[in-house]
Formats: sequence, C-alpha cells, structure tokens
Amino acid sequence: MLRNCARLLLRGTALSVRPQAVHSVRCSFPGITRTFAEEQPRDYGFPNATWNSNMMGLYQTYLAQCNGGGWRKIPSYNTTVHHIAGDPLDPARETRLFTRNLDQDGDGFEYCMFYNKAERRMVCLFQPGPYLEGPPGYTHGGCIATIIDSTAGAGAVYLCGSVMTANLNINYKNPIRLGSTVIVDSKVEKIENRKVYTTCHIRSHDDTVLHTESTVLFIKLNV
Amino acid sequence: MLRNCARLLLRGTALSVRPQAVHSVRCSFPGITRTFAEEQPRDYGFPNATWNSNMMGLYQTYLAQCNGGGWRKIPSYNTTVHHIAGDPLDPARETRLFTRNLDQDGDGFEYCMFYNKAERRMVCLFQPGPYLEGPPGYTHGGCIATIIDSTAGAGAVYLCGSVMTANLNINYKNPIRLGSTVIVDSKVEKIENRKVYTTCHIRSHDDTVLHTESTVLFIKLNV
Repeated sequence: MLRNCARLLLRGTALSVRPQAVHSVRCSFPGITRTFAEEQPRDYGFPNATWNSNMMGLYQTYLAQCNGGGWRKIPSYNTTVHHIAGDPLDPARETRLFTRNLDQDGDGFEYCMFYNKAERRMVCLFQPGPYLEGPPGYTHGGCIATIIDSTAGAGAVYLCGSVMTANLNINYKNPIRLGSTVIVDSKVEKIENRKVYTTCHIRSHDDTVLHTESTVLFIKLNV
Repeated sequence: MLRNCARLLLRGTALSVRPQAVHSVRCSFPGITRTFAEEQPRDYGFPNATWNSNMMGLYQTYLAQCNGGGWRKIPSYNTTVHHIAGDPLDPARETRLFTRNLDQDGDGFEYCMFYNKAERRMVCLFQPGPYLEGPPGYTHGGCIATIIDSTAGAGAVYLCGSVMTANLNINYKNPIRLGSTVIVDSKVEKIENRKVYTTCHIRSHDDTVLHTESTVLFIKLNV
C-alpha cells in the first residue's frame, strides 16, 4: 500500500511522530538496558526482555556488521503521522502502526530491521508472539504477509523514496511456529522507471527451513 | 497457512475455545443489544457500538438474506485452541487469533462473515480501525492481505474442510481508508484433487471502488 512516510523512515527522525511516554526496556542480555527520555519516541527495534536467545544472537550478529560491514540498523516506531486532514475517524483517537499496535512486549510483532544499501537488501529479524495466531500454535498467514510487505517495503523506500505496493505474491512453504525466530530477507532486484521489483524469503533462524518465497512489486510515487 | 481449526469453524462450537468473561455489546442501532452469559465465548461477528452506519447497513442486508436467501452468518471468536503439546511458548500465556487480538472494540479488525454454500462464496464486511495503519490514514497492506486470507480461507474450510494456504497473490488497486467499510467477497472457483482455487475482491461499501483483486490457492489437508 501507499508508503508516503519516507521522510520518517529515511531520516529516522521524530519530526512526524507523536512523542511517547517514558519507556524502560531491559534486555535479557546483560548490559543492554535502554531507558528512553520522556517525549522521545521509543524505537521498538531495540531488544526487550521477551526476545529469545535466537533473536538476540542474530541481533548481535547483524549489529556487529554495522561497524564497517555495510549494514545499518534502522529505527522502528509505533506511529506514522497523526491528524490527517479530513480523516473520518475521531481525531482524538490515536492511530497505531499495524505492526506495533499491541502494548505488551512479546505479544505481537517483535522485530528489528537492518539495511545494506550496497546489496539493496533489507533484513528483518522477526519473532511472532502469541497474539499473532492463525492455526493453533502457528503464525497467521496474513501476519506473515504483513512482515513481508513491511520489510520489502522498507527496503524499497530506503533505496527509492516513497513507494506504493502494487502486487504481493507469496508461496507458503512451511508454517512458522509462534515464539520462533525467522529471518525475513528482502532485496530490490530491478528498477524499471517507476516499478521497483523485490524478492523476499523467510527462513528459520538457522537457515535450515525455507518458510516462504515471495515477490513484491512497488510503484514509486512522485513526491 | 495451516487451517486445521475446521471443527471450530464448521460447527461454530465452543468446544475448542477457552471461555471468555461476560461481554455486553451494545449496538449503535436500537434493539440490537446482546449480552453474553459467563463462560460463553463472545461472538465478535455481532455488531458493537463502533460499527459505522455503512457497516450496519450491510450487516442488516446480509442478515435479511439469511432467512431463505441462501446465506448464513458464521461465528467469530478471538481464540483458536490453547495448550498445544510441545508449544515452546509459555503455556500460561494465552494465545489470540491475529484478527481478534485487540481488547478495545473498534481499534482493530471489525468484521463479520456470511456464507453462501450454493454460490461457494464467503463475504466479509470489514471496517478497519485506527490501529491497523500503514500509510497515514490508510489500512496497512499486510492487514488487507490478512482479511483476504481469512475470508477466502474460511470459505475454503466451510466447503472442503481443513486447508492450508499455498499461494496468496494480491493486486492492490486503491488504498482503503481507516474507518471506512469494505466488502471482502471470496469465491471457490475450482477444486482439483487437493487444490482449492479461490478468488477474492475487495470493493467499497457502495460498490463504486475496487480496492484489490486477488487469488488464493489452498491445499486440502488429510484430517
């Protein structure tokens, strides 16, 4: 869908984001405790106590590659922009980004993203929580579609600016167990005029299981 | 993804569902107030005070066709089955169906489904709430994928029993504004051995805007 929040994503700025309350997030690994000042939006892409050991291990691996390894960690907030002109919703009713709409850490989408511009890749480390259930014990197919759209979309935005999802095509190979950790790996394969062609695969944390294969076509917006 | 909750869907029974607390749901239209007894799971497919007039109008239209018109309203709970053997999650941590995981009426997925066996159609009336945001003011593309997978999947389950989503292919035509009402209309087009081919379109409440076109392929499970 429309992704006209490029400014937010590209700059990692709080300019377009409603300030959040104070957040104290204690990581399950020692030494990674972060406390966010009042009025500063929380970056949900940092570890919290609900991340499992596989999630933390991958996080540390990618973080280590951010020092000269070509990767960078990108921020993740729970809002886009409020108070849209002419919004038919109650203007006093706060909106939330779909993937960050649950209050309790660990219940829903736990994820963080890393970007590699040279490789045109956006990688998302994803741990689905118990509130994302489809079949008993497993992640909902729509939830998987959501993290694919979000990851590939972020990759397209970082490379090309604002885009709109035009087509999403997913082959489901193996279900994803709730509480597990998977790697969502997207790549911009080709750009033709306004069309941005991406691929996205989801694999298990140890690369032994291919969960999904997908393509996502985006259209660049004129902004 | 795996849809082995056919028993729940087909029978509309509470056998596999953890009982919920007492719920009192007051509809915005007079005379449609429902109070659910304790230990009875709430059917979220009934109107609540957050449904807008378009949603209520469509609901009444389809409900009227349930009396000899070939349609039936199907129930919708917020859980599938708990306490999966060997679940790596904390067994004390309750799971929630992805599309029913927010506590506050109106924040997330507001929807109800109607089934027509003769026409092999499952229709979902859907009102996306402010916590389903993608681009500012609009519904997240993954959220749209979710309601498509859920609707087409329910249609396949009602006709064929348990199924697994194998492919989901969506063309996004026009974005869906948060707070609006759309009709998700799915149909089983063809069954070949274990393959169940479905189509699904999302149109605006007044049929003037085509939001998405999609196909969903399901595989019948041997249960």
